[in-house]
Amino acid sequence: MVIAYNGANYHGWQKQADGVDTVQQQIERAASRLVGHSVVVYGASRTDAGVHALGQVANFFTTNYSIPIQAFCRALNSMLPGDIAIISAEQVNNDFHASRCAIAKTYQYRIFTAPVKPVHLYNLVYHYGQWLDVEVMQEAARRLVGEHDFRGFTCSAEARQNTVRTIYRCELCQQDSEIIVTITGNGFLYKMVRNIVGTLIEIGRGHWQPDRIDKILSSCNRSDAGPTAPAEGLYLVSVKYPTE
Amino acid sequence: MVIAYNGANYHGWQKQADGVDTVQQQIERAASRLVGHSVVVYGASRTDAGVHALGQVANFFTTNYSIPIQAFCRALNSMLPGDIAIISAEQVNNDFHASRCAIAKTYQYRIFTAPVKPVHLYNLVYHYGQWLDVEVMQEAARRLVGEHDFRGFTCSAEARQNTVRTIYRCELCQQDSEIIVTITGNGFLYKMVRNIVGTLIEIGRGHWQPDRIDKILSSCNRSDAGPTAPAEGLYLVSVKYPTE
Repeated sequence: MVIAYNGANYHGWQKQADGVDTVQQQIERAASRLVGHSVVVYGASRTDAGVHALGQVANFFTTNYSIPIQAFCRALNSMLPGDIAIISAEQVNNDFHASRCAIAKTYQYRIFTAPVKPVHLYNLVYHYGQWLDVEVMQEAARRLVGEHDFRGFTCSAEARQNTVRTIYRCELCQQDSEIIVTITGNGFLYKMVRNIVGTLIEIGRGHWQPDRIDKILSSCNRSDAGPTAPAEGLYLVSVKYPTE
Repeated sequence: MVIAYNGANYHGWQKQADGVDTVQQQIERAASRLVGHSVVVYGASRTDAGVHALGQVANFFTTNYSIPIQAFCRALNSMLPGDIAIISAEQVNNDFHASRCAIAKTYQYRIFTAPVKPVHLYNLVYHYGQWLDVEVMQEAARRLVGEHDFRGFTCSAEARQNTVRTIYRCELCQQDSEIIVTITGNGFLYKMVRNIVGTLIEIGRGHWQPDRIDKILSSCNRSDAGPTAPAEGLYLVSVKYPTE
């Protein structure tokens, strides 16, 4: 399944023990009702509370093939709330796993720079409210591309954890009052995109130079990087899998 | 004050006795804190629960002129939540009243016709999800323009209430998967715009012909009109006052 959601009203993707509302729970409940047995839904990315998705990918196992895939999509959508949509669905091989098989993910982060509050984008963008130097941010973003140890951009990596990732692309574009950061990589550490964006903002407002990125990549020290940008600006755009 | 808000999280504009959250309450609380005495904020339109505004107008009285108007706007915005914004403010004559002095109001209604749920417009459009014949709807909309008794388009008018209003403009436009109805009039009865839109949808889906409008305008019978369109598609766009 390819899934879009507005994360504003959910405590993130992942099911939680204390019964708070999550996207995974909503989809598991609907899919279980539909196929007539309890299912576990595996998502490609465990998006945090308030984070959105345009193209999350998730799979589940069922032996009930009686529902045609188009009808499945429509029926599942009708059981889900208005802020979660199944965009498409297909039958996959039994060895497919939405998270383990993913070879790349793309995220976008929306920064709203105009001073007036964007009330109709409430919880859908980060209202920064001040001018940022996009060219300088773009220069900094280029330094992230490639294989690096991103330990300095994560919050809670254990000492033995492999924190090396490859960023294929990190670009900024300006649209009216918004700066949109697009970043593609083979994988992302916990809060890595939001810590990268928080650092780019510090650079864009002139607090640091673009070479601050090099410093963080070599020191691997979280305290060299900027603050974590708020969840509401972040979108999981797409997940890539090997083509057969 | 010209005010924009996302109505999704509010029980409408008007202050309520039972303490539920309303836009008027939020602005009165912030403005009272700012000017240092309790104020009553008068709005041009008492928008219903879930209805949005791009240009609501409201006024209040204060004897505290110590705050420059630009600083007032900024300060008030900083005290208000992210889904309510003061767009601009100015000092007006003592005889100004946002509601009583208004000579025209413009509303828009956003109908989303694509089948896939617009999750990032959740609570910001009406997800109708099916094709509608815009040309036929436009032909029907034209029949609303002019001075008419709109009793058939309201829910709860008393027998003696004057239900004659003048519609200056009622137009539809199609943008991607959305049909936007724009309607300007000298005043609107309770739920009048949403009942007009509900009727236009019935016409657009082929249930009625455009001349159904004439029938409702002459019968003045609410049961001849269509259902009330949901609140989430409705926006108060602007309020007009006489220029001096």
